Amino acid sequence: MEESLTVCRIMQPGDANVSGNVHGGRILQMIEEAGMIVSTRHCNVGMTEENNCICGLARVEHTDFLQPMFVGEIAHLHAVATYCSAHSIEVKVDVHAENLFKGEKRLTNQATLWYVPIKEGNIVCNVPPLVYKQPEDEMAGRRRYLKQKTEREQVDTNAPSMTDNWAMSIDVPNRNGEMHTVGNAQSSLIHLVGVQDCGVHGWAMGGVAMKLMDEVAGICAIRHCHTNVVTASMDAVDFHQRINKGSLLHVRGRPIFNSYKSLLIQVIVMVEQSGKNEHGELDVILYCACSAYFTFVSLSSERKTLPIPPLKLHTDDEKARFEEGQQRYKKQKSLRSAM
Amino acid sequence: MEESLTVCRIMQPGDANVSGNVHGGRILQMIEEAGMIVSTRHCNVGMTEENNCICGLARVEHTDFLQPMFVGEIAHLHAVATYCSAHSIEVKVDVHAENLFKGEKRLTNQATLWYVPIKEGNIVCNVPPLVYKQPEDEMAGRRRYLKQKTEREQVDTNAPSMTDNWAMSIDVPNRNGEMHTVGNAQSSLIHLVGVQDCGVHGWAMGGVAMKLMDEVAGICAIRHCHTNVVTASMDAVDFHQRINKGSLLHVRGRPIFNSYKSLLIQVIVMVEQSGKNEHGELDVILYCACSAYFTFVSLSSERKTLPIPPLKLHTDDEKARFEEGQQRYKKQKSLRSAM
Amino acid sequence: MEESLTVCRIMQPGDANVSGNVHGGRILQMIEEAGMIVSTRHCNVGMTEENNCICGLARVEHTDFLQPMFVGEIAHLHAVATYCSAHSIEVKVDVHAENLFKGEKRLTNQATLWYVPIKEGNIVCNVPPLVYKQPEDEMAGRRRYLKQKTEREQVDTNAPSMTDNWAMSIDVPNRNGEMHTVGNAQSSLIHLVGVQDCGVHGWAMGGVAMKLMDEVAGICAIRHCHTNVVTASMDAVDFHQRINKGSLLHVRGRPIFNSYKSLLIQVIVMVEQSGKNEHGELDVILYCACSAYFTFVSLSSERKTLPIPPLKLHTDDEKARFEEGQQRYKKQKSLRSAM
Repeated sequence: MEESLTVCRIMQPGDANVSGNVHGGRILQMIEEAGMIVSTRHCNVGMTEENNCICGLARVEHTDFLQPMFVGEIAHLHAVATYCSAHSIEVKVDVHAENLFKGEKRLTNQATLWYVPIKEGNIVCNVPPLVYKQPEDEMAGRRRYLKQKTEREQVDTNAPSMTDNWAMSIDVPNRNGEMHTVGNAQSSLIHLVGVQDCGVHGWAMGGVAMKLMDEVAGICAIRHCHTNVVTASMDAVDFHQRINKGSLLHVRGRPIFNSYKSLLIQVIVMVEQSGKNEHGELDVILYCACSAYFTFVSLSSERKTLPIPPLKLHTDDEKARFEEGQQRYKKQKSLRSAM
Repeated sequence: MEESLTVCRIMQPGDANVSGNVHGGRILQMIEEAGMIVSTRHCNVGMTEENNCICGLARVEHTDFLQPMFVGEIAHLHAVATYCSAHSIEVKVDVHAENLFKGEKRLTNQATLWYVPIKEGNIVCNVPPLVYKQPEDEMAGRRRYLKQKTEREQVDTNAPSMTDNWAMSIDVPNRNGEMHTVGNAQSSLIHLVGVQDCGVHGWAMGGVAMKLMDEVAGICAIRHCHTNVVTASMDAVDFHQRINKGSLLHVRGRPIFNSYKSLLIQVIVMVEQSGKNEHGELDVILYCACSAYFTFVSLSSERKTLPIPPLKLHTDDEKARFEEGQQRYKKQKSLRSAM
Repeated sequence: MEESLTVCRIMQPGDANVSGNVHGGRILQMIEEAGMIVSTRHCNVGMTEENNCICGLARVEHTDFLQPMFVGEIAHLHAVATYCSAHSIEVKVDVHAENLFKGEKRLTNQATLWYVPIKEGNIVCNVPPLVYKQPEDEMAGRRRYLKQKTEREQVDTNAPSMTDNWAMSIDVPNRNGEMHTVGNAQSSLIHLVGVQDCGVHGWAMGGVAMKLMDEVAGICAIRHCHTNVVTASMDAVDFHQRINKGSLLHVRGRPIFNSYKSLLIQVIVMVEQSGKNEHGELDVILYCACSAYFTFVSLSSERKTLPIPPLKLHTDDEKARFEEGQQRYKKQKSLRSAM
């Protein structure tokens, strides 16, 4: 059985912004679809029907958008299963953009995703073993597995606290009108999870959430920069809880830090659905499905990067988050220069 | 519990016409979705699970499109529950368009919608009371409720009468109500060729026409068979002329022949566009872009093929086409058995 | 340079009918997209920028749907360029459906398509030569080329004749070719209510009907004005009856009145579904789900409102409806000025 897959798709006007740049979120969604197919295929080989499972996205590692992709180009996504633990599977996806006229193919993304196989009744399944070419491949995979496991546990403490009004209120505070403040760029959108978001299972595919997160982050970036903005990277994201069909997603973004040429945006996905509250009564329940940090750059009409207007900080919280964002920025920068 | 909701969404090329104006219908659809969420949320608070309901749209009051909205702008929809009667709920929705570059926000619509909560088994539910800020709000709401109730009853007398040929005929002149005639299944649809149909060039991709042709053929087959119908084959199709962006497609289908287990449907795509006629005057030009023959089969709920109800032929033309269809059927059958 | 391509895509609910069978038209559309990519890629290799071209679909050979494809399966499309004449290119596409659970892959379609490369200014380009594995491949390709060329010429004589009323009439019985009559703009479309129209419940959301109504009204307005038309208002609409999944909507519009700068269009939604009639027999049931009045305005390329061409009225019914429309117009105008 093949453990790899190549998906191609021609990029349509609906996949891009008005400048013709394909949305980073659209690319993330295609990456996730390719990863889901490869991991689900791996987990079902040789299984009896009652053990059929679908792989749900658990985590995406930090991914850089190395090159832009344009409308009319062909996106080629090559996905390979690269490591399996007892209950999770790692998939690597390379994305190339092909220009049919010039005949050139450019690497635009390299992503690493972790999936967990789930069967009827929300039960986690065992992952069949993967055949590695060399024993070193398995050892290196195991190191990546342990590293992300540690990070996942840390990230949970970073999730929005129950007292963070921005995250927990169903409507967001008003924008205040002053240019280049956090409040001015802060954005949110609401999405009702429909049948078309859910494939054959009853929950939304991870790529749907990532596409919406990138959309909100892009709106924040446009509001701050007023230019053609494009996704430069997405930090590692953990998917804490399933998103069910019929639930409401509140996707919120706010800029938290800017360097000379990049803008860091925090995005969270809050899920609203009916359920029982602590008193056993039916109530509206609100939980965080995932959160992410997106980096955007601003482009001139000649597609040159432009300086980012400095963020105006007012509250102590905004200043603390700016500090935190700066740490993230420096860490990423040192990781890149170490490569 | 909050009784309001703000939904934002970025307007994509597929939401607008070729001039970039967002379709009024797309805005109405977003308004209705926001209203549905607010009303459904209101009706489910404090309910036990067996009383969970979904709100169905009962009425939309007159709504003006005050300002245009354009591709690339953000639509902000603010929905609030404003009045509740025993079995209906009024929601007001304000729509603003935000131009991210200019930073300006314009009011584009103000709509009032009435919803009715419905649970499993099509049962109308009770609406929980609404808390009003002031007693006058409730009284004003009650007046609006009574006014629309009166109008609803009037409007019923305005509905198309059973003798209005335009309303009551199913699509075609020669439908006479008799089942299994050609006229009874004959169908057509109109499609405006938009940006999303055209990729990067200015004309519709061939696949768009084929998808529409299969859609019309499928509708003909459903109307003839009233079962789960699936495409069995498509005969060779030639694409005679380009279909330009902004032109109107008239896609028409009619059954022309049936064998014991298959139904042959002829489909044509006529293109309507403005242009100069032979006298140099502005006129509507109509040409055939392509035509095709589709074969459909009818399936039972166990996915077994079912016999096709025989076509009832009335006119000489219908009989001649049936003859012609039979020749095609025999030719295909002999080609298949020769393979 | 590669002359082949494999496209895969997971089949979503929106690609299929309510029984889960992927529409044949959706498969044809994916086939055409794969063929377009392979042929366009072939024709642009080694070309200078001014000779860049896009391949337009010229013909699809007879294609059988050998096996059904279902929602949740992966469609694999493998496209290969198989023959080139001076100005056309033949592409063969094999389609397989992969069931991720069973791990099985079934051949569902084999299609042969002919493309013609076209550059700016609608000029047909030369096709670069193809390298064949064996000389016999080129000879067999040439035979297929000549065969289809002969058939194409035959088919042209089969195209709908200018006297075929079914093909040549624009949609409605009383169109007589005269511009600016009611019959000339009157339009209708058929829509099959699918899973994606229905949210989580089994019936269509009200917003779906409003979007279709605005679409038909817009088509009427374009056919009357031949300009960029936009929705100005929608009168109050009542939703009389639920619209169930799987039913057929007949959405019809006709202009009924024009003022100097506005056009009033009446739209109705008739629902067709199978059911038992008063005699207990299976019959087609037709009812009106809702009706509405839309007002459209016509815009110049500088987005200034333009005068509306006066409606030419022929029948007494048309005159009576014009009168009624004028009352509506006056009433709305006085309501607006009273605000």
